[in-house]
Order: sequence, then C-alpha cells, then structure tokens
Amino acid sequence: MSGNTFGKSFTLTTFGESHGPALGGVIDGCPAGVPIDIEAIQKDLDRRKPGQSAIVTQRKEPDTVEIYSGVFEGKSTGTPIGFVIHNTNQKSKDYTHIKDSYRPSHADYVYDQKYGFRDYRGGGRSSARETAARVVAGSIAKQLIAPVHIQAFVSAVGELTLPNPEKISDFSFIEQNPVRCPDPAMAAEMESYIKQVRKDGDTVGGVITCVAKNVPVGLGEPVFDKLHAVLGQAMLSINAVKGFEYGSGFAGAVLRGSAHNDLYNEDGTTKTNNSGGVQGGISNGMDIYFNVAFKPVATIMQSQETIDNKGETVTMEGKGRHDPCVVPRAVPIVEAMTALVLADFTLRNRNSKL
Amino acid sequence: MSGNTFGKSFTLTTFGESHGPALGGVIDGCPAGVPIDIEAIQKDLDRRKPGQSAIVTQRKEPDTVEIYSGVFEGKSTGTPIGFVIHNTNQKSKDYTHIKDSYRPSHADYVYDQKYGFRDYRGGGRSSARETAARVVAGSIAKQLIAPVHIQAFVSAVGELTLPNPEKISDFSFIEQNPVRCPDPAMAAEMESYIKQVRKDGDTVGGVITCVAKNVPVGLGEPVFDKLHAVLGQAMLSINAVKGFEYGSGFAGAVLRGSAHNDLYNEDGTTKTNNSGGVQGGISNGMDIYFNVAFKPVATIMQSQETIDNKGETVTMEGKGRHDPCVVPRAVPIVEAMTALVLADFTLRNRNSKL
Amino acid sequence: MSGNTFGKSFTLTTFGESHGPALGGVIDGCPAGVPIDIEAIQKDLDRRKPGQSAIVTQRKEPDTVEIYSGVFEGKSTGTPIGFVIHNTNQKSKDYTHIKDSYRPSHADYVYDQKYGFRDYRGGGRSSARETAARVVAGSIAKQLIAPVHIQAFVSAVGELTLPNPEKISDFSFIEQNPVRCPDPAMAAEMESYIKQVRKDGDTVGGVITCVAKNVPVGLGEPVFDKLHAVLGQAMLSINAVKGFEYGSGFAGAVLRGSAHNDLYNEDGTTKTNNSGGVQGGISNGMDIYFNVAFKPVATIMQSQETIDNKGETVTMEGKGRHDPCVVPRAVPIVEAMTALVLADFTLRNRNSKL
Amino acid sequence: MSGNTFGKSFTLTTFGESHGPALGGVIDGCPAGVPIDIEAIQKDLDRRKPGQSAIVTQRKEPDTVEIYSGVFEGKSTGTPIGFVIHNTNQKSKDYTHIKDSYRPSHADYVYDQKYGFRDYRGGGRSSARETAARVVAGSIAKQLIAPVHIQAFVSAVGELTLPNPEKISDFSFIEQNPVRCPDPAMAAEMESYIKQVRKDGDTVGGVITCVAKNVPVGLGEPVFDKLHAVLGQAMLSINAVKGFEYGSGFAGAVLRGSAHNDLYNEDGTTKTNNSGGVQGGISNGMDIYFNVAFKPVATIMQSQETIDNKGETVTMEGKGRHDPCVVPRAVPIVEAMTALVLADFTLRNRNSKL
Repeated sequence: MSGNTFGKSFTLTTFGESHGPALGGVIDGCPAGVPIDIEAIQKDLDRRKPGQSAIVTQRKEPDTVEIYSGVFEGKSTGTPIGFVIHNTNQKSKDYTHIKDSYRPSHADYVYDQKYGFRDYRGGGRSSARETAARVVAGSIAKQLIAPVHIQAFVSAVGELTLPNPEKISDFSFIEQNPVRCPDPAMAAEMESYIKQVRKDGDTVGGVITCVAKNVPVGLGEPVFDKLHAVLGQAMLSINAVKGFEYGSGFAGAVLRGSAHNDLYNEDGTTKTNNSGGVQGGISNGMDIYFNVAFKPVATIMQSQETIDNKGETVTMEGKGRHDPCVVPRAVPIVEAMTALVLADFTLRNRNSKL
Repeated sequence: MSGNTFGKSFTLTTFGESHGPALGGVIDGCPAGVPIDIEAIQKDLDRRKPGQSAIVTQRKEPDTVEIYSGVFEGKSTGTPIGFVIHNTNQKSKDYTHIKDSYRPSHADYVYDQKYGFRDYRGGGRSSARETAARVVAGSIAKQLIAPVHIQAFVSAVGELTLPNPEKISDFSFIEQNPVRCPDPAMAAEMESYIKQVRKDGDTVGGVITCVAKNVPVGLGEPVFDKLHAVLGQAMLSINAVKGFEYGSGFAGAVLRGSAHNDLYNEDGTTKTNNSGGVQGGISNGMDIYFNVAFKPVATIMQSQETIDNKGETVTMEGKGRHDPCVVPRAVPIVEAMTALVLADFTLRNRNSKL
Repeated sequence: MSGNTFGKSFTLTTFGESHGPALGGVIDGCPAGVPIDIEAIQKDLDRRKPGQSAIVTQRKEPDTVEIYSGVFEGKSTGTPIGFVIHNTNQKSKDYTHIKDSYRPSHADYVYDQKYGFRDYRGGGRSSARETAARVVAGSIAKQLIAPVHIQAFVSAVGELTLPNPEKISDFSFIEQNPVRCPDPAMAAEMESYIKQVRKDGDTVGGVITCVAKNVPVGLGEPVFDKLHAVLGQAMLSINAVKGFEYGSGFAGAVLRGSAHNDLYNEDGTTKTNNSGGVQGGISNGMDIYFNVAFKPVATIMQSQETIDNKGETVTMEGKGRHDPCVVPRAVPIVEAMTALVLADFTLRNRNSKL
Repeated sequence: MSGNTFGKSFTLTTFGESHGPALGGVIDGCPAGVPIDIEAIQKDLDRRKPGQSAIVTQRKEPDTVEIYSGVFEGKSTGTPIGFVIHNTNQKSKDYTHIKDSYRPSHADYVYDQKYGFRDYRGGGRSSARETAARVVAGSIAKQLIAPVHIQAFVSAVGELTLPNPEKISDFSFIEQNPVRCPDPAMAAEMESYIKQVRKDGDTVGGVITCVAKNVPVGLGEPVFDKLHAVLGQAMLSINAVKGFEYGSGFAGAVLRGSAHNDLYNEDGTTKTNNSGGVQGGISNGMDIYFNVAFKPVATIMQSQETIDNKGETVTMEGKGRHDPCVVPRAVPIVEAMTALVLADFTLRNRNSKL
C-alpha cells in the first residue's frame, strides 16, 4: 500500500534513504535462466552516479552494487534477486540546517505532515538517490527483454530544444558528451548553458526523450494498464518529473483525425507513427517513443525565504553539492523505468492466450 | 494481471464489451457508512452518455445503472458494490464491415495479434463505452471523499486554447454549454469549430484541464505511487489520451529553479503553485491541477486505405455515429478517474501513522 | 484490501448479498481461446444449489448464471468475464427476527462491530450464497486447466468416517447419492444419520476429501505462495471450514522421517505419497489430496439464548430452511476453489523460466 | 507473482538463499511512529537460531540483523524497512553430494523441473533459513500491534501430546525448556524422546499451538481473506507444515450444532470458544487459537535410495547438522507469521468504516 513496489509480474521493491547505511531492492518474478551481466549493471549505475562529469553534482559516491541472492552460476534462478548499494558518503552534518525548516518545493513539509516526523538527513526517502536501485533493476530487466533496445537522451535543457527528437536514429554521440544529447552542436550549447546556470547559483529543467526499438506486438493490457499509461506512471514516479507524452502527445491534440491516423502497410507496420508504437494500450511493433519533462532542481545556491516547523519565516541558504540540471543523470533512470515496464508486460503477455 | 482493476485500497474492477449484454464493475474497499446518492451517480452518467447534445454522437444509450450489492438503507455496507449497465442499443450489423479489416489507429490489429481473435462488434473491450463503469465508480468515490471538489473542463479544441486554465475560478458556465468550456466566448467558438469538423467528415483532438480543491495534505505515496504518477496513469488509461502534465508541466521544464520554486506562507500554503498541489508525490493542500491531451477520434467519415487480416489492402468507409471531438464527453471521465485516485489515496493515507 | 478478490493471475472478484437483487463476479486474467461450456458451468451450479435432494435445505433458488462479457463465439476473449446470478427467492420477512439480535456462532455481531451496521437480511455477505459465484468461476477454471481432474467427496459426517479416503479410486458413485460419498454402504449410513439430525432440529459437521489428478510438475511458488498454503487459504475461506490438511496431514506429525519420506522411482514419481503431491510448495506430479473439516451449521431448529444489539439477553428460535449438514452441497465449492488455485498457479508457472 | 511477498497493507518481501552472501527482507507499509526495539528483534531471532540447545542442529549461525532503512531515532518512519542477515557459515562443500541427486521429500526435484536448474547449495531458497527474515518482520509486527500478545508453544512431539493445549494459561515455562513445551513433565518426556530419535539417526514430527490474546474485534475480511484463512496460508507457508486447524478444528467436524455453538454473554464475549476467536472470518475479541502440524524433517542420518538428475538410482547418506525435530525452533516462526497476519489486518481494518 505504501507504494514501494513497481510492477505486477516482474516486480521491484526498493528501500533506503539517502543517508542511511544502504539502499537496495528486491526483484521478484525474474524467470530462471536469464544470463545476468553484473558489469552491465554497474555500467548503468555509473551513468547515473554523481561526479561523473563537470556539469553534475560533485559528490563522491561509488555506488557499487552487491547482489545477495537469486543469481547462481551467472544466471537468474527464479528466486528473488536481493541487492544492496552501501552509502559511503553520508555527511549528515551537511543537513542539520534543514532539520527544522522546510526547503521550498521539496517534500520536507508534506513528509512532516503525513508521517508526523521525517528522516531529515538529505531528503531521506524523497532523495533521488533511491533511483539507484531502479537502475540496477532496470538493467536486469533489459537483459530479460533483449533484443529490445531502449535508448533515452536529453532533447531539451531550458529553452534549448532539439526538434523532432523521435526522428533521431544516430545514438552514437549520446554517451560521448556529458549532457547526453545526441546532437553534437546542441550538446555543446546545452553544456555551456548548464555551466552558466550553475555559475548563477541556479538550476534549470529539461526534457528527456526515450525510444524503444524491437518491441514485439502485444505488450500492454487493454484498460487501466495500457502500455503508455503504465509508462506514464513509471516516468512520473521519477523525482522532478512534471509531464509525459507519447507519440504525437500534446501536439496531437491540435490535429484532425485525417492527419493523425496512422495508415497500415501490408505487413501490419504503419506509414506514420503518431501512435508512438502503441494502439489501444498495446504495442503494435513500431518504435515506442515518449517525452518526459523535468522541472528545475529545487535546491538552488541562493538564499530563499521559507518557514520552519513552527510556521515561522526563516531564510535558507542553499548548501551542498547539487545538480544544476537533472536531465543528464536522469537518462539511465528513464531507460531503467522503461525496461521495468516492458519486462513486466512481457511476462504478463505470456498469459494472453491459451 | 490483465489490468482490469484500478486502485489498491479503493478498487474498481470493470467488465464488459460495447456490444455484449451489459457492462459493469465491482468496487471493493469502499468503507461502510458512506451515504450513496444514486441520482448523483446517474447524473454523472448522463454527462457522459451519447446523444446529450448536437456536437456528440447521436447514438441512443440510456445508460441506466443498476446497483446489485454493497448498498443497504442508503449507505455503503463495506462489502463490494457490484453494478451493471445493460447495453440496449447493440446494432451488431453496423460493425460487420470491420470484422476482417483493421481500422487505422484503432486497436483491431493489436487485439488480433495479442489474443488470436477478437470480439469485433464495435470495438468490444477497446470501446470507450467501458468508461461508463468508471463514471459510476468515480461518482461513488466523490461521495466518499467529500468535501473534496473535482472539476474538469475543456481547455482546448484543436488550436482553440484557453489561456491559463488553472487560474479559472468560475466554473458555473461549464455545464451550461455542450463543449463544457468555462468561458462563454471560447465555448461558442469551440462549438462552431466542432460542427465544422463534423461537416468535413473529420475529427479533432483537444485538452481537458482538471482542478481538485479542498484536498487534504498527505495524499500520495513517496516513490512509485506518487500522487501525480498515479493520476497520470489514470488519465493515460482513458481512451485517446496522449499526454499528461501537472502543475507547471512541460512549460516548467523551461524555467529556472529560482523562478519555479513555490515559496511558503507561514500557514504552510505556498505563494505560487507551480507544484500543482503535489510535492514529492504527496498533496500539499494547494489546488491540484493538470492537463490531459486527447488525440482526434480515429473513426472519420472519410474513406481510408487499410489492410484486412490477410494483409491485403482494402478501402474502408467510416460508418456509424461517432463523436467529432471526444473532449466534451470525456470531462466526467477525467473527473471520475481523479476521484478514484483521490479516494484510493485517502484510504491508503489512513495508515501513514501509528 | 477488502479481500473480495482471489488469485493473482487468474483472479475472481465476487460481489453480492444473499438477499440483494443479484450476486456475481468478474474473472480477470483468463487467457483468450479457452472453449467455454456454459452447460458445464450450470451443471456445477446445480450441484451446489438448494433443494436438490431430501437432505439439504428446501429453499428454491434456480441459480441461473448469465455471462455478460468476455466470451465470444464460444471462447474466452482474454477480457474480463463478468457474470451474474439473480436472486429470485429473497424472503426478507423471514429474517426480521435477526435484525437486532445476534445469532450464536454467526457473523452478525462482528459485522455490526466492524462496519457499524449490517445488511441483516439472511446473513447478507456472510451467507454461503456468495459461494455460487465461486462455483461459476471454478467451473471456468476447470475448463482452462483440463485435463487436470478434480474430484471432491464427503469422507465424514459426524463420527461416520471413511477410512483412507485418499486411496479411493472409484468415483462413480459420488454423484449418485445425495451425500456425495463414494462408498454406497457408508453413503446410506450418512444419509440416515443426517435425516436423524434434522429430525432432532440439530446440525452436524463433516469432512470433505479432494483429489486432483494429472496435475503437472511445477505448480506453486516456493515461499509464501506454496501450492498447499494457497489451497489452505482457499479451503479455509469457504464458510464453516475449521481445518485443512494435505498429504499425511496431522497424522504425519506423529511419524518418523524414515517412515514418512517418499522415495523416488526412476521416472521421478514416488513410491508413497505422504507429500500429497506437493514438495516444497510445488506440485511434483503425484495426486494432490487434502481434507477439509466443516463445523456443524450454526442455525439449529432449537431455541437458544443470545443477546441483542443493546447487550440484552433474548431467546432466539431457529427459523427458515437450512441445511442440517453442509458437506454434501459444499463438494462442488471445494472443487471450484481447488480449480481456481490450480488455474492461477498454471498461469503463474508460465513465467518460471526464460 | 512469484510469491515472495506476504501481506497486503503491512507487507514483507523476503530474499535470500541458505548459502548466498545474505538473506533479508523489506517491510513496506509499517506506519510511521512505531517504536522499534532492535533488541527484541534479535531476541526473537535467537529463539529461532541453530545451536541454541542440545536438541537442535549444532550449526553455528549468529543471525545478526542489520536494519538498513525505515527506522530513524528509534521509530519507524513510514518508509520501507530494509534489513539483512549475513550468512556467515556457508560450508558449500557439505552439499556437493546433493548437486546431482534428489533428496527424498525435499524440493530438489521440483526445483529442477520448474526452473531448469537450481542453487543446490543447502537447499537454496527452499531452506528454512529463509524464515529468519520472517522472524525479523514478525517481531516488528508485534511491536506495531501491541498490546496484542501472541504465544506459541509445542503441544505434541510424535505421539507425545499435550491435552487441551488451548486451555493452557501459564506460559512461564515455555522459554525455560529446549522443547518450548509449557508443561514441565511433558517437556522432559519430549526432550528425552527427541534425543532418542536423534540417536536413531531419525527425525520426528510435532504440533505447535498458538494463542493470541487481546485481539480487538473486527480483524479479518469477510470472504476470501477471512482471518483464519490467511492465518492458515501463513502457517502452511512455513517449511514442513502439513495441517492447520483453528478453534474446534477437525474435532469440531464431529460435533452437533447444539454442542458447538458459542453462546453469548451480555458483553459480547462468548461462554465457550469453539470458534477460536473468529466468527465469519472476523475476530470476535475472544482468544484466537490454532494448531499447526509439522512433518518429520526429511533429512535423516540413514542411507536412503533415491535418484539423480539422469533418473538413475543412487544411494544417499544423510550428512550435515540437522534438526531431529523442527518444532522447538519453529515456535518463533509461528509467532512471527501470526504477528504479520494480525498487523496486516489491523491496518486493513482501519478502512472498514467511513
């Protein structure tokens, strides 16, 4: 009921606060016999970890995953895969200034209201550090659903926007620049812009586009668990996400049916893909693509007025090592959540027919 | 696993095809003692039903709900509420032309692929007729969570867009015009436009905005079941929805943190509401608002090329009585799904503290 | 949360009170393509219905099932199967005497405590009438898992006990006597005994044994959802059940390991079957068998002292048409619940391997 | 789907094999503000651990629990409680003899069939070592539901049976003898008997009785999730359990209704308690009591014929350090599972009324 489990057949349950001894998760429902490549998992984790480039937070967290169960002789055994990432960089003293005060646009206030008190060290459970567990599980999910290929990338930072990101087919540059933008010129612009924002003690939002290729026909369930609906939940569950659209998205709302409909080729593929690879909630074999909007990080290096837990006004000064823009590090998280959704529906789809 | 249940504590399971004998649902988890106003339910159903105005489909379906269980002496008993709406207007002959062919941008093709065959009468389970059951359950959910007030309305039809819809406070005109737009001048424009679109044998998309007032602090769960993430799933599970954004949404991705952060008043309310009433996935007591993008209805009154189930090209002529624009009738559906989400989180939140 | 859904992949949600307009259920997760034999369902319902013989309640309830969805052209479509049984024999006036008083060993008192009030007509939701929906769903489950064969029968009525019921292989007499005991001599004894009990205005308990043959190896999950654990829950969820044991059961607790262990034949079958067809929670291909203990029906035709809802002592006289012994009519219910469990694990097992 | 999660509102997900690096679990749904006594948890773990007395296995496993999240300043925070117990005594070499052979009445064979291969070190996931995680979670559940008091004890070992165990009110001797039998004379007899059985290289079964006092009225849900049904599943999910009965149990099946019914006192308590504290699946405030039958441990110190994974007959010699009788160490496991069930229903019951 507390919502720390995602998925129905391939499920991930996560635990852990940013400043406790460890965070981790349990994958339940991974079929036996999936070859598990631990290095691939660590590689995805490294794409998410702090300190990887000049434009992200400079905190040092090695984020090494330890797998405690469910893998034997290099393969999943069908039993739950428990894993842990120890927190090695807890500087609790950094956070004493927020113990009694509520950072604007953070979860501090609502946690105190909902639970009566909170683990005030660094955001506790509301910290995006929790997503490290998702990346581990998503990486295993990718291995289950191969040869499906999932690729996310940054398509906007502030007002710098890549046009028609769903049309991009060359992904080779994405991991070669710190922004994770597929276009070299735009990547350079975005990088400079993020550096300027950080210099201003400010933050900025952005958009991640994700494309999934080689998805078989039939994933997704017709009513409440439409493929795109669960993808939407998955993306909106990532810290700082404000919006989700797939296929033609909000732009599609402007169109007429005669322009929007995707006509069929004789092999069942479609001539256009306004549907974004999903019809009636079920994958149709075309590329799945969608956009995810991220707000600017709420922690800024400027002083802001706020209140404390007695309702009195206090001035708060931004401290710590935070990201000026969250999207570069969120790319592997978007991929991980996509993989979890597709893995879950892959297993669920095995029961669609007698 | 097949995804016909929504919610975790307050759950709705729906069943029924557009052309079977009946559709309906079961609500499980409604606490005992909620006064159930059957007329209010029927009123919401009537807002969704076909034939209610000149700009919606002219099919005649009375959509009368029968409650079979769970209500006694005017109150919920705590046991499951089973209800049924009999289909009285099944003209199966209208649909024989689609038995073997795949309508563009419909679910016909993926159903055949996923299930091996399909109930080809009028879309079967993929028909938006299924949402009638959601409206019944949503209406009961509204009664559970009173005095929360949920109001949806049409904020865009094609390119006709109401500016700053979240700022609208006068809802009185919404039910007084067939478009369900709160602004009289814009409503008239939209109505004319929809009529023109229909005359063209075409359809058009639109946007619905929804506002929830009087929501208590604390609804939503921190990680995967963030309030806005589950709202997103709920909205994206409605037929024809392509996108969801809450609070500042996609526009928020362009902003800097210094402009986006919502500063606190001393009573815990915020001076701005870019957060859309949700912080860290949990309601903060401010108005919740979000936008939902709908694509144009796929059934157009024009001939289109498509394929049949042998993969051969055929020409398909639009038939039947369909909506030229889905958003006016989708307003009560958006409200219903919002109510289901808030009811579920209301019950779940009862267990947040000892 | 309210527990009206059973199963995880093949799920049944039931609704309905004994004296409302109808009861019914929704099966979600039945794969597409299962041939659905409506007559077979009705036949199972008729085995459960009142008035079928001289030793059961003489209430008249036709219990005709109407299927509203999910079946098309004689096969399941993969969408939810909604079904309803209308109540045609509600004599609410029979029950006014229990409106304010609590029948001993019934649920009246706890319902009032838990929910604040109750539907006092004939037990409402606590009535075993709810099990009619289980029989419908169980009959569909049997069709899904064919050629698994499930056979339940009465193995004890009061102190009349059939020795070694798990060894019985001739089931032909079961449906030829009103007690549903496979042994003609014992069946006659039991029938006379039940008649005597009824003449005494009393009731008596009994035991049902169930055997499932042709169960494939691999059904059941290793830890909390062991096959026999979920079977146990399924059986204990039937009204009046007090105990469950499988394989050697309580008698096995007396044995030594050297006597209890089932040694293997070379084909993986075992020489003995103290395990009751289940090892480590997973079916091993041998016959599954178990015993289910039913208490005597609480409604007796004698006057009993009890209390009313003001806590005052009142005398209550048994009324109505009740079963003197519940086990003959419970046989199809035990089979139905067994079928639901096996169907669910059959689908879940499809995901055990890559 | 793989069944490694127990509970619906207060949930426990476990992971870990007997010979991996660690086992553990995640509790999700524990309300914030529960004082968490780590020493009490460790004490319960110590009651389960090997090597605690002369009549249990002499393996040395310290079983120290580490809590990684969800507890802050001595109280639960409302976020998931992740915990781990490192395995410190894995002697994998002890188990090489079972890599290719199937131990009689163990899960080896069915695991290989279900999953294609298995972690053959010491039973892997099928080892009762997994129950250590249950004891941790159960101990936290006990702290949530205080002042409910749960007490389990050994009521039978082989044919040595304590009469009317549900009538025992003096629990003081239970933890003062290695058998955990409340009666000193019987405890001594049982202890001698277990020693003899071990000397014979054999094992023996037994029965545990459990009593829960101070349970409030209203726990349990009416239909599938009856309190005793979920208790039944909980108990049957413990390794080696063969049967479950509550209240009058199997003996109640022999009685007549006039003898079995529990008549009310004016305060709503009952004069007798054949119902075992549960009416219609809901607690009625009387003591809950039930019996759990355990088979003899399958690993015996004698040679047995069995088969290997090529279907060839081999002789297997019992090795290792195993329990001659499982019930003394299973007492805290029975309590833990009872606590998990009652905690879950306590939270679920908060939503029974408006």
